[in-house]
Amino acid sequence: MYFDSHMHSEGLGFSELKKLAEAGIVEICSLAFYPVRPMYPGTMIDMFRKLTEFEVARCEAAGVKMYPAVGIHPRCIPPDYELVIEYLSEGEWVAFGEIGLEEGGDEEVVVLEAQLRLAEKLDVPCIIHTPRKNKRAITEKTLSLLRKLEFPSDLAVVDHVNFENLDLVLATDYWIGLTVQPGKLSAADAARIVEEHGTERFMLNSDAGYRDIYFTSVADAARELEARLGKEARRVAYENAKKFLRV
Amino acid sequence: MYFDSHMHSEGLGFSELKKLAEAGIVEICSLAFYPVRPMYPGTMIDMFRKLTEFEVARCEAAGVKMYPAVGIHPRCIPPDYELVIEYLSEGEWVAFGEIGLEEGGDEEVVVLEAQLRLAEKLDVPCIIHTPRKNKRAITEKTLSLLRKLEFPSDLAVVDHVNFENLDLVLATDYWIGLTVQPGKLSAADAARIVEEHGTERFMLNSDAGYRDIYFTSVADAARELEARLGKEARRVAYENAKKFLRV
Repeated sequence: MYFDSHMHSEGLGFSELKKLAEAGIVEICSLAFYPVRPMYPGTMIDMFRKLTEFEVARCEAAGVKMYPAVGIHPRCIPPDYELVIEYLSEGEWVAFGEIGLEEGGDEEVVVLEAQLRLAEKLDVPCIIHTPRKNKRAITEKTLSLLRKLEFPSDLAVVDHVNFENLDLVLATDYWIGLTVQPGKLSAADAARIVEEHGTERFMLNSDAGYRDIYFTSVADAARELEARLGKEARRVAYENAKKFLRV
Repeated sequence: MYFDSHMHSEGLGFSELKKLAEAGIVEICSLAFYPVRPMYPGTMIDMFRKLTEFEVARCEAAGVKMYPAVGIHPRCIPPDYELVIEYLSEGEWVAFGEIGLEEGGDEEVVVLEAQLRLAEKLDVPCIIHTPRKNKRAITEKTLSLLRKLEFPSDLAVVDHVNFENLDLVLATDYWIGLTVQPGKLSAADAARIVEEHGTERFMLNSDAGYRDIYFTSVADAARELEARLGKEARRVAYENAKKFLRV
């Protein structure tokens, strides 16, 4: 049994969700993302409703237990985003995500900070994106914001960590998300990182969504890890995500 | 080469879109639908943007030429839907869809009528849903609205037609959509209807979306029809949709 701690199930079809379950990926966290920058804040709110109502049931029907994460991705900041934050402040949530910085401009920082403050107040775990471009610089900026807020270490996973920013996140106490996907980490890369740094703080994910055909990558990485670490692999492939998300 | 005249590609994953292309379904019309009733009109507008921008490109990358249809489905009527109609009145569109009646209440009729009037004004073809429940009564109500508006026969396809309402639509001059999907028509049903009533006014579709694993049904129905009618099958499996949509 594997847990994909970061994917976008809304981009997957029903036969693909079934294949997740067949591959042993029976629990997932599906993160909010809107594929074009919304012109309206209500689009994000309705998307959270879609994700937490319709999408949870759809995954369930395919044999996958899905935990929805809601929040404003830095590429999805709508006008009047305050209304979205206000909506988030009034609900009960499993997690906030995908949140974080993409280019690191002022608006992105304000939106991320507002969501982190709210997360701490509501005691909600946060899944924090790091971008493909300028990964190291943006990770530094993200970590410095977390430091400034004295953000609780059990409430954040820094995600899409790779060889460019691994040392930066290892120097903190936050959880670390390893994304196994072409152009990110290979299954062998992920296994090597965990083998070297221990199973304590890592969790595996695919980031699979609208254009990915390799959506069962967590199962491959988990098997790679099992071959190296035996039963200890289970922490990274399943237990850490459960512990972090408290599910 | 086949044309699926009515599906919801947003519910399909990338590997599924590729399978469409592999099955010969290289052109599709993807219709607007939001899986929970939106609380905001902007959700529909952003969804049209997602469909006409992001989703067209995603299908293209999978080898499928997608023509987007926009509009307010009767199960997706948001508050202040007038803003959505206003947005529709300012754009250029391939088609309006999925529009129509579900339960046939007053609001549904007002929203459908507004979209039909706009479609005639802008000269945009309309893909008109008929529901699963009370299919015959709701089809009668829909056709009587079309009659009242003297809606041009080349601008509407009445869709999801089956043995319950076929005679009603045959008595008009509108196009007829045959949906091949478990619980709707089988491939053999669709072929039988076309064989009996001629290839002139029919087009095939799957209505495939968020929970359907049988998304290549148009290819099966087309082959069934080819076995019976030879090359003449091509009209129903490809040409009529192109003609109706003017693409």
